Amino acid sequence: MNLVSHFLAHRTVTNALVGKIEEANYDFTPTETSMSAQKLVTHMYTSYYKFIKTVKEGNGAPFLEKFDDNEQSLNQLGEDFTEKTKELLASLTKEELDREIDMTKIFGMNVTGHLMVQMAIEHEIHHKGNLFVYVREMGHTDLPLYINFK
Amino acid sequence: MNLVSHFLAHRTVTNALVGKIEEANYDFTPTETSMSAQKLVTHMYTSYYKFIKTVKEGNGAPFLEKFDDNEQSLNQLGEDFTEKTKELLASLTKEELDREIDMTKIFGMNVTGHLMVQMAIEHEIHHKGNLFVYVREMGHTDLPLYINFK
Repeated sequence: MNLVSHFLAHRTVTNALVGKIEEANYDFTPTETSMSAQKLVTHMYTSYYKFIKTVKEGNGAPFLEKFDDNEQSLNQLGEDFTEKTKELLASLTKEELDREIDMTKIFGMNVTGHLMVQMAIEHEIHHKGNLFVYVREMGHTDLPLYINFK
Repeated sequence: MNLVSHFLAHRTVTNALVGKIEEANYDFTPTETSMSAQKLVTHMYTSYYKFIKTVKEGNGAPFLEKFDDNEQSLNQLGEDFTEKTKELLASLTKEELDREIDMTKIFGMNVTGHLMVQMAIEHEIHHKGNLFVYVREMGHTDLPLYINFK
């Protein structure tokens, strides 16, 4: 599976779940100490992009960028970040993927571009797993499979 | 990362979460339509093993095997299946990983050993993401990171 297909196999499911979250539920949290639905989804969209931008630029600076503009609906945010992330993934060269990035300040180690890409998708799958429970708790029972091979 | 390290980077986190689930909470479900904690955890442990046994044997039969023996505690089940899965992963040869397996009856397509291994880990991460919410709802707030690089 190439990087873009693999990304979309999970991101299309994330976006389908987000499509079920009404604005009235943006503040929903399953427990007092959990992230709100809005915060969780924003974290997913921005993190994937930051992981991949870090690979593209070869240093950890993009990982620390803030994307706190939450004026948009989560659906709109999803469309924007999915498109930007897809383009960035498609642009990655073998050199960028093989390169070691100094992530000692953030992860305590150097990380190759390949490993950053893998961490990005696993981060998405993890939080999508959280999100499935949130969306079911919002009353939705007709939920997609966790991966979409189409 | 080799296959066993990658497996353990997530499985040790699963096992740490399972260690927080008291027997009184085995029947916990976040919603009426969710799997119980016990069912979810059993599904995680047995599924990973079935994915990898399918790669080892080169056909879909192990994927359909039943492991319904729930006499054990979830911790014990986790120890057993983690060990069995680790051994099986360590035994996989290049030929077994490169081989195409006929999974048309189950997934509607042929799948290489490599892709089955990837599906196994993504399945674990997905359900571990569910489990994090369950365990937080049981009142635990001191939870591990979703991946363990040690």
